[in-house]
Amino acid sequence: MAWKAPLQDMQFVLEHWLRAEQAWQRLPAYADVDLELALQVLQEAARFSEQVLAPLNAPGDRQGCRLEQGRVRTPDGFAAAYRAYVDGGWPALACEPRCGGQGLPLVLDAAVQEMLFASNHGWAMYTGIAHGAYLCLKAHGSAQLQARYLPGIVSGASLATMCLTEPQAGSDLALLRCRAEPLGDGSYAVTGNKLFISGGDHDLTRDILHLVLARLPDAPAGSRGLSLLLVPNGLEGGVGNGVQCDGLEHKLGIRGSATCALRFEGAKGWLVGQAHGGLAAVFVMMNSARLHVGLQGLGHAEAAWQLARDYALERRQMRAPGHSPSAGGAAADPIHLHPAMRLTLLELRVRTEGMRTLGYWTAHWLDVAGASTDPALRAKASTLAALLTPIIKAAFTDYGFSLSSKALQVFGGYGYTCEFPIEQVLRDSRIAMIYEGTNEIQANDLLLRKVLGDGGEGFALLLGELRAEAGAGQGAAAEALGTVCDRLQGVVAEVERSAAHGPQYPYRAAGAFLQLCATALQAFAWARTVRCLEALQADAPLRREKHESATFFFNYLLPDFDRQVAAIEAAACPLPFIGEPF
Amino acid sequence: MAWKAPLQDMQFVLEHWLRAEQAWQRLPAYADVDLELALQVLQEAARFSEQVLAPLNAPGDRQGCRLEQGRVRTPDGFAAAYRAYVDGGWPALACEPRCGGQGLPLVLDAAVQEMLFASNHGWAMYTGIAHGAYLCLKAHGSAQLQARYLPGIVSGASLATMCLTEPQAGSDLALLRCRAEPLGDGSYAVTGNKLFISGGDHDLTRDILHLVLARLPDAPAGSRGLSLLLVPNGLEGGVGNGVQCDGLEHKLGIRGSATCALRFEGAKGWLVGQAHGGLAAVFVMMNSARLHVGLQGLGHAEAAWQLARDYALERRQMRAPGHSPSAGGAAADPIHLHPAMRLTLLELRVRTEGMRTLGYWTAHWLDVAGASTDPALRAKASTLAALLTPIIKAAFTDYGFSLSSKALQVFGGYGYTCEFPIEQVLRDSRIAMIYEGTNEIQANDLLLRKVLGDGGEGFALLLGELRAEAGAGQGAAAEALGTVCDRLQGVVAEVERSAAHGPQYPYRAAGAFLQLCATALQAFAWARTVRCLEALQADAPLRREKHESATFFFNYLLPDFDRQVAAIEAAACPLPFIGEPF
Repeated sequence: MAWKAPLQDMQFVLEHWLRAEQAWQRLPAYADVDLELALQVLQEAARFSEQVLAPLNAPGDRQGCRLEQGRVRTPDGFAAAYRAYVDGGWPALACEPRCGGQGLPLVLDAAVQEMLFASNHGWAMYTGIAHGAYLCLKAHGSAQLQARYLPGIVSGASLATMCLTEPQAGSDLALLRCRAEPLGDGSYAVTGNKLFISGGDHDLTRDILHLVLARLPDAPAGSRGLSLLLVPNGLEGGVGNGVQCDGLEHKLGIRGSATCALRFEGAKGWLVGQAHGGLAAVFVMMNSARLHVGLQGLGHAEAAWQLARDYALERRQMRAPGHSPSAGGAAADPIHLHPAMRLTLLELRVRTEGMRTLGYWTAHWLDVAGASTDPALRAKASTLAALLTPIIKAAFTDYGFSLSSKALQVFGGYGYTCEFPIEQVLRDSRIAMIYEGTNEIQANDLLLRKVLGDGGEGFALLLGELRAEAGAGQGAAAEALGTVCDRLQGVVAEVERSAAHGPQYPYRAAGAFLQLCATALQAFAWARTVRCLEALQADAPLRREKHESATFFFNYLLPDFDRQVAAIEAAACPLPFIGEPF
Repeated sequence: MAWKAPLQDMQFVLEHWLRAEQAWQRLPAYADVDLELALQVLQEAARFSEQVLAPLNAPGDRQGCRLEQGRVRTPDGFAAAYRAYVDGGWPALACEPRCGGQGLPLVLDAAVQEMLFASNHGWAMYTGIAHGAYLCLKAHGSAQLQARYLPGIVSGASLATMCLTEPQAGSDLALLRCRAEPLGDGSYAVTGNKLFISGGDHDLTRDILHLVLARLPDAPAGSRGLSLLLVPNGLEGGVGNGVQCDGLEHKLGIRGSATCALRFEGAKGWLVGQAHGGLAAVFVMMNSARLHVGLQGLGHAEAAWQLARDYALERRQMRAPGHSPSAGGAAADPIHLHPAMRLTLLELRVRTEGMRTLGYWTAHWLDVAGASTDPALRAKASTLAALLTPIIKAAFTDYGFSLSSKALQVFGGYGYTCEFPIEQVLRDSRIAMIYEGTNEIQANDLLLRKVLGDGGEGFALLLGELRAEAGAGQGAAAEALGTVCDRLQGVVAEVERSAAHGPQYPYRAAGAFLQLCATALQAFAWARTVRCLEALQADAPLRREKHESATFFFNYLLPDFDRQVAAIEAAACPLPFIGEPF
């Protein structure tokens, strides 16, 4: 029941769904990347994930991290796995060659991330923020800071953290209190307490680079008074830097990940970006992290699907209705033949594969945004990635958790025991709905900022992509997607018109709107899949299976769309207040 | 943030929604029970749950059970809490006076169970099966067995277990292998391995009565060859009885509950009911247990709601849109004012309170079934309880888990840590969807056996109750309920007609059908609530709040109904098979 990297499906997405090789040829930075190279990279990542990370997943969860004399010890094997990761050159994968990177497209990074998170979410927390820190430093760091710190991130000698949360300030960064006092030499003394800092301390690398949101002395109140500082855990010559791990959180899941309470006591740091411009700098990192978190949801769904499928193929209970007794004369049928289990298993497979196309598609738009020579296309790609990111983050992590629970149900009582790995997937998956901006924050970001914020202009681009697919395809799937597009456009128009329902109205509609978009995107994913299948041999098993999956999606899952539209309509109704118990 | 028994809402349900006092007057066995007595009982149970059980909930989870020299040690305080429970006379609550019981109605037992499960699910697992064992022995035990064992169950000197599951036989009892050989003196030697036995061993009582499903030597194969045996853990004079606890499960939740692997090695036991008639005997116990499990879902939902509400009233993050800054000048608003949190909190409150009416209503039908002097009414009440039980079991436990997850989201990152109690509610709640018949089994039981099994006759009785409520009320709620009834009737007729879709069709529709019934019942619950409110003072805060809850239900939650109808329609589409990965 060991997790296997879904290389076959990854190849299908790259080769047929994205037609990635052709797309890369249009982007000079990636023109040398062909499908063969891409698949080799994925095979290597698969080997690392299957052979190094997956075996550490359950033991790392059981052992957890511990704080010994002020330093964090990660579970046995985590540090060695990290050395193997560095030796494999993985930190450099999607970094630019001029920074020492391999210059591979983000779509490959997305596939690699999926594998890391699926095989060992707790471990992958340590490396997860590195690419965001790289992007942030590259975009906002001074030349000096870049020269000093980028090489370590790219080589993997350094790992990074994102130090935002404080006890009183979680979703609301405006409430941050951490201070940064100028020391006169261009550096700052950073003081304050940070909470829930993933990888805030560990024994994977000597160097840890903290990216800390803090306030300069003259900072305006609120979120516009935040500055981002790079605070290394140690200074030249092995001198400590006033960063102390005060404690580790005991958590529902990702127990192999050190979630630290950090105390900065006049720790030396340097501004990244402008004074009071910390939010802009942090958002570069945050957007990368949000896509990664969405890919965690995909990884959990894939892990859950594999576990449930393998168990259901093996476990026999009762006769399946309408199924003739198996030839071997066993007294019961494998449970994958039972209708309720078939519904569950198909939902697991179909949602997971749909998510994969959409997650990689989003990463591909980021590649286009960064590497196209056509400024208009770059702008469009940026807009699309910005719209897709909150949907991927929230919807994928919702699915990661709900699908893990459905997979656990397939195991019956065994699923509830720690003997079987599915309960860990359930526990691990739950955090992804919360961190990097709760899913409620994602929904507000999508509807309020990104759809309504520009009068629907950006959203029209996304809708245009879906309509183009509906127009390119034929048959029931394309037709259903066309209807979805019409209705989605109508919903957006209706929401735009409905300011009369008061200032809270779009916030009430936002959660359902995000889910509606996720359903529409899945319809798009499967309509395009159906069209891609024409390139496969008529009798290819993959072709048959993908057709069956698409049919299942349109018959059984697309009806979610109506419920989500109804929820947006319901949002026109005002809500009572929740008061103290009387 | 301590759990408080929801006595006010319990009183509302008893006094106004059920009009329980008037109902009891029509049942001679309960004619002496008035509202005042009922509320006194609930206040006592509340005190016990709040002061004795709730404080042991988190510590019991952390400490868990351990196996020491073959005997189970429960967490510190569990045994003392059980002594207090026995001293309070709680085991006797709903037992007949002729057996030493207090003869109180099951509807009060339901409220007490809700409190036990909400305050400490792990602990309540030990007592949870006792009433089922009492009913089973009373209905199927010989006079000798009753005389010997009933008093201990009623007094609480003995606790009972239900020994069904074996490693190869979970949902499928037909696969059971445990054997029972006649010893010639009317007793049997029971041999075999049982798995997942809650309270299979513990230190709460000396005497544990195992109710074991096993096969006699001449038994036919399959589930019709099962017999039920009572096997005490020890014999007269302190002699052991060949029952060994081989291990404890490490589980996602309910860690204070000892989930045992039991080995019976020629243990002496006595038949309960007929030889080969074990299933009939076990179903008495199982039906009681299924209602109890549904009440666990209610308890989890109530606990989750209280935790989320209290936190949301306290925690401040960001300005709520359209909300004028609070007078105190705080930089952020309490999060219960944020639209996304308001939606979550209202769903928590409204679902929980709706579940409470329906859970107690089901228990009340059991009281009518057992105590009415009118045979026709007894028959009707039995039918209604049989229909309602799988719905309560499955829908309530689905809600218990999904609402716990929603409540956890209110806490943000804190919710994911073990410092806050909500993650335990999430973990504990998950088992209830699995045990006592998975929720998929409940759905099959409802649609295949109880609705289609008698050609819809029984279901017409349930629909009649809903229609009567729709007719009795006025206004939007009653009208919406009327529409729900029409559509539900249409769905049942359609499902009955659709045999042409093949033998798997109703099994594909069963899960959605159960959810549909649950939504219809919630519409019924809230329509009746609206009507009941007329009895309250016009300016009573409870009246306003219940009106708001009902409005929220019909605006925001009832649209689930359409999605569930669509899922049943989708079930007409055949499903592909899940194969081995290729």
